[in-house]
Amino acid sequence: MKIKTLDDVLLHELGDLYSAETQLVKALPHLAEATTSVELKAAFTEHLEQTNIHVKRLQEIFSNLGQVPAKVTCEGMKGLIRECVETVRTTEDNSAARDAAIIGAAQRIEHYEIAGYGTAETHAAVLGHNRIRELLQETLDEEKKADRNLNDLAKSSINNQAKEEVRV
Amino acid sequence: MKIKTLDDVLLHELGDLYSAETQLVKALPHLAEATTSVELKAAFTEHLEQTNIHVKRLQEIFSNLGQVPAKVTCEGMKGLIRECVETVRTTEDNSAARDAAIIGAAQRIEHYEIAGYGTAETHAAVLGHNRIRELLQETLDEEKKADRNLNDLAKSSINNQAKEEVRV
Repeated sequence: MKIKTLDDVLLHELGDLYSAETQLVKALPHLAEATTSVELKAAFTEHLEQTNIHVKRLQEIFSNLGQVPAKVTCEGMKGLIRECVETVRTTEDNSAARDAAIIGAAQRIEHYEIAGYGTAETHAAVLGHNRIRELLQETLDEEKKADRNLNDLAKSSINNQAKEEVRV
Repeated sequence: MKIKTLDDVLLHELGDLYSAETQLVKALPHLAEATTSVELKAAFTEHLEQTNIHVKRLQEIFSNLGQVPAKVTCEGMKGLIRECVETVRTTEDNSAARDAAIIGAAQRIEHYEIAGYGTAETHAAVLGHNRIRELLQETLDEEKKADRNLNDLAKSSINNQAKEEVRV
Protein backbone atom coordinates (compact mmCIF):
# COMPACT_ATOMS: atom_id res chain seq x y z
CA MET A 1 0.00 0.00 0.00
CA LYS A 2 1.47 3.31 -1.12
CA ILE A 3 1.30 6.40 1.08
CA LYS A 4 -1.36 8.59 -0.56
CA THR A 5 -2.71 11.02 2.03
CA LEU A 6 -1.32 13.45 4.59
CA ASP A 7 -2.77 11.15 7.29
CA ASP A 8 -0.65 8.31 5.86
CA VAL A 9 2.39 10.61 5.83
CA LEU A 10 1.88 11.57 9.48
CA LEU A 11 1.43 7.93 10.53
CA HIS A 12 4.64 6.99 8.71
CA GLU A 13 6.51 9.88 10.35
CA LEU A 14 5.29 8.82 13.80
CA GLY A 15 6.44 5.23 13.15
CA ASP A 16 9.82 6.55 12.06
CA LEU A 17 10.13 8.70 15.20
CA TYR A 18 9.12 5.72 17.36
CA SER A 19 11.91 3.64 15.82
CA ALA A 20 14.34 6.56 16.23
CA GLU A 21 13.55 7.04 19.93
CA THR A 22 13.74 3.32 20.77
CA GLN A 23 17.12 3.11 19.01
CA LEU A 24 18.27 6.15 21.01
CA VAL A 25 17.20 4.59 24.34
CA LYS A 26 19.68 1.78 23.63
CA ALA A 27 22.48 4.10 22.44
CA LEU A 28 22.49 6.80 25.13
CA PRO A 29 23.96 4.65 27.98
CA HIS A 30 26.95 3.86 25.72
CA LEU A 31 27.45 7.57 25.02
CA ALA A 32 27.27 8.38 28.75
CA GLU A 33 29.82 5.63 29.44
CA ALA A 34 32.24 6.79 26.73
CA THR A 35 32.48 10.39 27.91
CA THR A 36 34.87 11.80 30.50
CA SER A 37 33.16 15.04 31.56
CA VAL A 38 30.90 14.51 34.58
CA GLU A 39 28.50 17.19 33.26
CA LEU A 40 28.29 15.53 29.85
CA LYS A 41 27.63 12.10 31.42
CA ALA A 42 24.85 13.72 33.47
CA ALA A 43 23.40 15.39 30.35
CA PHE A 44 23.21 12.03 28.53
CA THR A 45 21.70 10.29 31.57
CA GLU A 46 19.08 13.03 31.90
CA HIS A 47 18.34 12.82 28.18
CA LEU A 48 17.85 9.06 28.49
CA GLU A 49 15.10 9.68 31.06
CA GLN A 50 13.50 12.22 28.70
CA THR A 51 13.81 9.85 25.75
CA ASN A 52 11.87 7.20 27.68
CA ILE A 53 9.13 9.82 28.18
CA HIS A 54 9.23 10.62 24.43
CA VAL A 55 8.65 6.92 23.66
CA LYS A 56 5.65 6.91 26.05
CA ARG A 57 4.24 10.07 24.43
CA LEU A 58 4.45 8.42 21.00
CA GLN A 59 2.65 5.36 22.41
CA GLU A 60 -0.09 7.70 23.68
CA ILE A 61 -0.31 9.31 20.22
CA PHE A 62 -0.66 5.92 18.49
CA SER A 63 -3.33 4.92 21.01
CA ASN A 64 -5.12 8.26 20.36
CA LEU A 65 -5.12 7.43 16.63
CA GLY A 66 -6.25 3.85 17.25
CA GLN A 67 -3.05 2.58 15.61
CA VAL A 68 0.12 0.72 16.54
CA PRO A 69 3.64 1.73 15.44
CA ALA A 70 4.64 0.07 12.15
CA LYS A 71 7.62 -2.26 12.38
CA VAL A 72 10.00 0.05 10.50
CA THR A 73 13.63 0.93 11.15
CA CYS A 74 14.46 4.62 11.08
CA GLU A 75 17.44 4.61 8.70
CA GLY A 76 18.36 8.20 9.58
CA MET A 77 18.82 7.43 13.29
CA LYS A 78 20.59 4.17 12.42
CA GLY A 79 23.20 6.16 10.47
CA LEU A 80 23.51 8.79 13.21
CA ILE A 81 24.09 6.15 15.91
CA ARG A 82 26.61 4.41 13.65
CA GLU A 83 28.40 7.78 13.53
CA CYS A 84 28.43 7.98 17.34
CA VAL A 85 29.91 4.47 17.60
CA GLU A 86 32.54 5.45 15.02
CA THR A 87 33.33 8.64 16.97
CA VAL A 88 33.96 6.64 20.16
CA ARG A 89 36.05 4.05 18.27
CA THR A 90 38.30 6.59 16.55
CA THR A 91 38.95 8.96 19.48
CA GLU A 92 41.36 8.67 22.39
CA ASP A 93 39.96 7.30 25.67
CA ASN A 94 39.48 9.80 28.51
CA SER A 95 40.13 12.86 26.34
CA ALA A 96 38.26 16.17 26.12
CA ALA A 97 38.75 15.83 22.34
CA ARG A 98 36.52 12.73 22.42
CA ASP A 99 33.94 14.61 24.50
CA ALA A 100 33.96 17.51 22.00
CA ALA A 101 33.54 15.09 19.09
CA ILE A 102 30.74 13.18 20.87
CA ILE A 103 28.87 16.44 21.51
CA GLY A 104 29.03 17.10 17.74
CA ALA A 105 27.61 13.66 16.96
CA ALA A 106 24.90 14.00 19.64
CA GLN A 107 23.84 17.44 18.35
CA ARG A 108 23.33 15.85 14.91
CA ILE A 109 20.93 13.44 16.63
CA GLU A 110 19.11 16.28 18.41
CA HIS A 111 18.76 18.19 15.13
CA TYR A 112 17.44 15.09 13.40
CA GLU A 113 14.76 14.83 16.04
CA ILE A 114 14.02 18.58 15.91
CA ALA A 115 13.40 18.26 12.15
CA GLY A 116 11.34 15.07 12.55
CA TYR A 117 9.12 16.36 15.37
CA GLY A 118 8.83 19.77 13.67
CA THR A 119 7.43 18.21 10.48
CA ALA A 120 5.12 15.81 12.33
CA GLU A 121 3.83 18.63 14.57
CA THR A 122 3.07 20.77 11.50
CA HIS A 123 1.26 17.90 9.76
CA ALA A 124 -0.76 17.10 12.92
CA ALA A 125 -1.76 20.78 13.14
CA VAL A 126 -2.89 20.91 9.49
CA LEU A 127 -4.96 17.76 10.05
CA GLY A 128 -6.59 19.21 13.19
CA HIS A 129 -5.15 16.59 15.60
CA ASN A 130 -4.83 19.08 18.44
CA ARG A 131 -3.93 16.73 21.32
CA ILE A 132 -1.33 14.97 19.17
CA ARG A 133 0.08 18.33 18.11
CA GLU A 134 0.45 19.34 21.78
CA LEU A 135 2.27 16.12 22.68
CA LEU A 136 4.64 16.48 19.71
CA GLN A 137 5.29 20.12 20.66
CA GLU A 138 6.25 19.10 24.22
CA THR A 139 8.86 16.66 22.90
CA LEU A 140 10.05 19.18 20.29
CA ASP A 141 10.66 21.77 23.03
CA GLU A 142 12.64 19.22 25.07
CA GLU A 143 14.78 18.23 22.07
CA LYS A 144 15.58 21.90 21.42
CA LYS A 145 16.49 22.36 25.09
CA ALA A 146 18.73 19.26 25.01
CA ASP A 147 20.50 20.67 21.93
CA ARG A 148 21.06 24.04 23.68
CA ASN A 149 22.41 22.24 26.79
CA LEU A 150 24.98 20.38 24.69
CA ASN A 151 25.94 23.64 22.98
CA ASP A 152 26.39 25.40 26.34
CA LEU A 153 28.50 22.52 27.70
CA ALA A 154 30.76 22.62 24.62
CA LYS A 155 31.18 26.39 24.66
CA SER A 156 31.50 26.88 28.44
CA SER A 157 34.14 24.22 29.08
CA ILE A 158 34.72 21.16 26.91
CA ASN A 159 35.96 22.85 23.71
CA ASN A 160 38.50 24.87 25.69
CA GLN A 161 39.62 21.79 27.63
CA ALA A 162 40.10 20.00 24.30
CA LYS A 163 42.12 22.94 22.97
CA GLU A 164 44.33 23.13 26.08
CA GLU A 165 44.86 19.35 26.11
CA VAL A 166 47.14 19.56 23.04
CA ARG A 167 49.33 22.18 24.67
CA VAL A 168 50.22 20.23 27.80
CA MET B 1 45.97 6.85 14.54
CA LYS B 2 43.40 7.87 17.16
CA ILE B 3 41.87 11.34 17.19
CA LYS B 4 43.53 13.08 20.15
CA THR B 5 43.28 16.82 19.68
CA LEU B 6 40.62 19.40 18.82
CA ASP B 7 42.50 19.98 15.54
CA ASP B 8 42.07 16.27 14.73
CA VAL B 9 38.37 16.52 15.63
CA LEU B 10 37.87 19.52 13.32
CA LEU B 11 39.69 17.80 10.46
CA HIS B 12 37.53 14.71 10.90
CA GLU B 13 34.37 16.83 10.96
CA LEU B 14 35.40 18.62 7.77
CA GLY B 15 36.03 15.26 6.04
CA ASP B 16 32.63 14.07 7.17
CA LEU B 17 30.93 17.23 5.84
CA TYR B 18 32.82 16.87 2.55
CA SER B 19 31.48 13.32 2.18
CA ALA B 20 27.99 14.52 3.17
CA GLU B 21 27.95 17.33 0.59
CA THR B 22 29.27 15.16 -2.25
CA GLN B 23 26.61 12.52 -1.48
CA LEU B 24 23.98 15.28 -1.49
CA VAL B 25 25.11 16.60 -4.89
CA LYS B 26 24.24 13.17 -6.32
CA ALA B 27 20.91 12.86 -4.44
CA LEU B 28 19.33 16.28 -5.05
CA PRO B 29 18.55 15.80 -8.79
CA HIS B 30 16.56 12.64 -7.89
CA LEU B 31 14.61 14.58 -5.26
CA ALA B 32 13.86 17.36 -7.76
CA GLU B 33 12.70 14.75 -10.28
CA ALA B 34 10.44 12.93 -7.80
CA THR B 35 8.50 16.02 -6.70
CA THR B 36 5.37 17.44 -8.34
CA SER B 37 5.32 21.04 -7.07
CA VAL B 38 7.11 23.40 -9.45
CA GLU B 39 8.28 25.54 -6.50
CA LEU B 40 9.70 22.51 -4.68
CA LYS B 41 11.54 21.33 -7.82
CA ALA B 42 13.00 24.84 -8.12
CA ALA B 43 14.01 24.82 -4.43
CA PHE B 44 15.93 21.53 -4.87
CA THR B 45 17.56 22.75 -8.09
CA GLU B 46 18.66 25.98 -6.39
CA HIS B 47 19.95 24.01 -3.40
CA LEU B 48 21.98 21.80 -5.76
CA GLU B 49 23.78 24.91 -7.05
CA GLN B 50 24.44 26.00 -3.46
CA THR B 51 25.62 22.51 -2.50
CA ASN B 52 28.22 22.63 -5.29
CA ILE B 53 29.43 25.92 -3.78
CA HIS B 54 29.55 24.27 -0.32
CA VAL B 55 31.79 21.53 -1.75
CA LYS B 56 34.11 24.21 -3.22
CA ARG B 57 34.22 26.06 0.12
CA LEU B 58 35.26 22.85 1.88
CA GLN B 59 37.98 22.34 -0.75
CA GLU B 60 39.21 25.88 -0.01
CA ILE B 61 39.20 25.09 3.72
CA PHE B 62 41.26 21.90 3.22
CA SER B 63 43.67 23.82 1.02
CA ASN B 64 43.93 26.54 3.72
CA LEU B 65 44.83 23.80 6.25
CA GLY B 66 47.33 22.18 3.84
CA GLN B 67 45.28 18.97 3.96
CA VAL B 68 43.13 16.84 1.67
CA PRO B 69 39.73 15.36 2.62
CA ALA B 70 40.05 11.89 4.17
CA LYS B 71 38.37 9.11 2.18
CA VAL B 72 35.54 8.60 4.66
CA THR B 73 31.82 8.01 4.12
CA CYS B 74 29.49 10.16 6.16
CA GLU B 75 27.20 7.48 7.64
CA GLY B 76 24.70 10.07 8.86
CA MET B 77 24.08 11.48 5.38
CA LYS B 78 24.05 7.96 3.93
CA GLY B 79 21.15 7.07 6.26
CA LEU B 80 19.33 10.33 5.52
CA ILE B 81 19.56 9.81 1.75
CA ARG B 82 18.41 6.21 2.19
CA GLU B 83 15.38 7.68 3.96
CA CYS B 84 14.69 10.01 1.01
CA VAL B 85 14.86 7.09 -1.44
CA GLU B 86 12.48 5.13 0.80
CA THR B 87 10.11 8.13 0.95
CA VAL B 88 9.95 8.30 -2.85
CA ARG B 89 9.50 4.51 -3.14
CA THR B 90 6.65 4.30 -0.63
CA THR B 91 4.60 7.34 -1.70
CA GLU B 92 2.15 7.77 -4.57
CA ASP B 93 3.52 9.33 -7.79
CA ASN B 94 2.43 12.91 -8.56
CA SER B 95 0.86 13.49 -5.16
CA ALA B 96 1.10 16.46 -2.80
CA ALA B 97 1.37 13.83 -0.02
CA ARG B 98 4.69 12.71 -1.53
CA ASP B 99 5.87 16.34 -1.75
CA ALA B 100 4.93 16.89 1.93
CA ALA B 101 6.82 13.72 2.94
CA ILE B 102 9.86 14.64 0.82
CA ILE B 103 10.01 18.08 2.47
CA GLY B 104 10.14 16.30 5.84
CA ALA B 105 13.02 14.08 4.70
CA ALA B 106 14.87 17.05 3.16
CA GLN B 107 14.51 19.14 6.32
CA ARG B 108 16.15 16.27 8.26
CA ILE B 109 19.09 16.65 5.84
CA GLU B 110 19.21 20.43 6.32
CA HIS B 111 19.17 20.01 10.10
CA TYR B 112 21.94 17.43 9.90
CA GLU B 113 24.05 19.96 8.03
CA ILE B 114 23.10 22.79 10.39
CA ALA B 115 24.33 20.67 13.33
CA GLY B 116 27.49 19.60 11.46
CA TYR B 117 28.50 23.08 10.28
CA GLY B 118 27.51 24.58 13.65
CA THR B 119 29.90 22.28 15.53
CA ALA B 120 32.73 22.69 13.00
CA GLU B 121 32.32 26.49 13.03
CA THR B 122 32.53 26.53 16.84
CA HIS B 123 35.63 24.32 16.83
CA ALA B 124 37.30 26.46 14.14
CA ALA B 125 36.56 29.59 16.22
CA VAL B 126 38.06 28.07 19.41
CA LEU B 127 41.18 27.10 17.44
CA GLY B 128 41.54 30.62 15.99
CA HIS B 129 41.03 29.57 12.34
CA ASN B 130 39.25 32.81 11.45
CA ARG B 131 39.05 32.45 7.65
CA ILE B 132 37.82 28.85 7.97
CA ARG B 133 35.27 29.94 10.55
CA GLU B 134 33.96 32.60 8.13
CA LEU B 135 33.59 30.10 5.28
CA LEU B 136 31.78 27.61 7.53
CA GLN B 137 29.48 30.39 8.77
CA GLU B 138 28.54 31.32 5.17
CA THR B 139 27.47 27.75 4.45
CA LEU B 140 25.72 27.46 7.83
CA ASP B 141 23.65 30.57 7.02
CA GLU B 142 22.69 29.11 3.62
CA GLU B 143 21.66 25.77 5.14
CA LYS B 144 19.45 27.59 7.65
CA LYS B 145 17.89 29.63 4.83
CA ALA B 146 17.25 26.46 2.77
CA ASP B 147 15.54 24.89 5.80
CA ARG B 148 13.33 27.98 6.25
CA ASN B 149 12.44 27.94 2.52
CA LEU B 150 11.28 24.32 2.76
CA ASN B 151 9.26 25.20 5.86
CA ASP B 152 7.60 28.13 4.10
CA LEU B 153 6.76 26.02 1.04
CA ALA B 154 5.17 23.33 3.23
CA LYS B 155 3.17 25.78 5.31
CA SER B 156 2.10 28.15 2.52
CA SER B 157 0.82 25.55 0.07
CA ILE B 158 1.97 21.92 -0.03
CA ASN B 159 0.58 20.70 3.34
CA ASN B 160 -2.85 22.13 2.54
CA GLN B 161 -2.78 20.64 -0.97
CA ALA B 162 -1.95 17.27 0.60
CA LYS B 163 -4.81 17.65 3.06
CA GLU B 164 -7.32 18.63 0.34
CA GLU B 165 -6.15 15.83 -1.96
CA VAL B 166 -7.79 13.19 0.24
CA ARG B 167 -11.14 14.99 0.12
CA VAL B 168 -11.54 15.13 -3.65
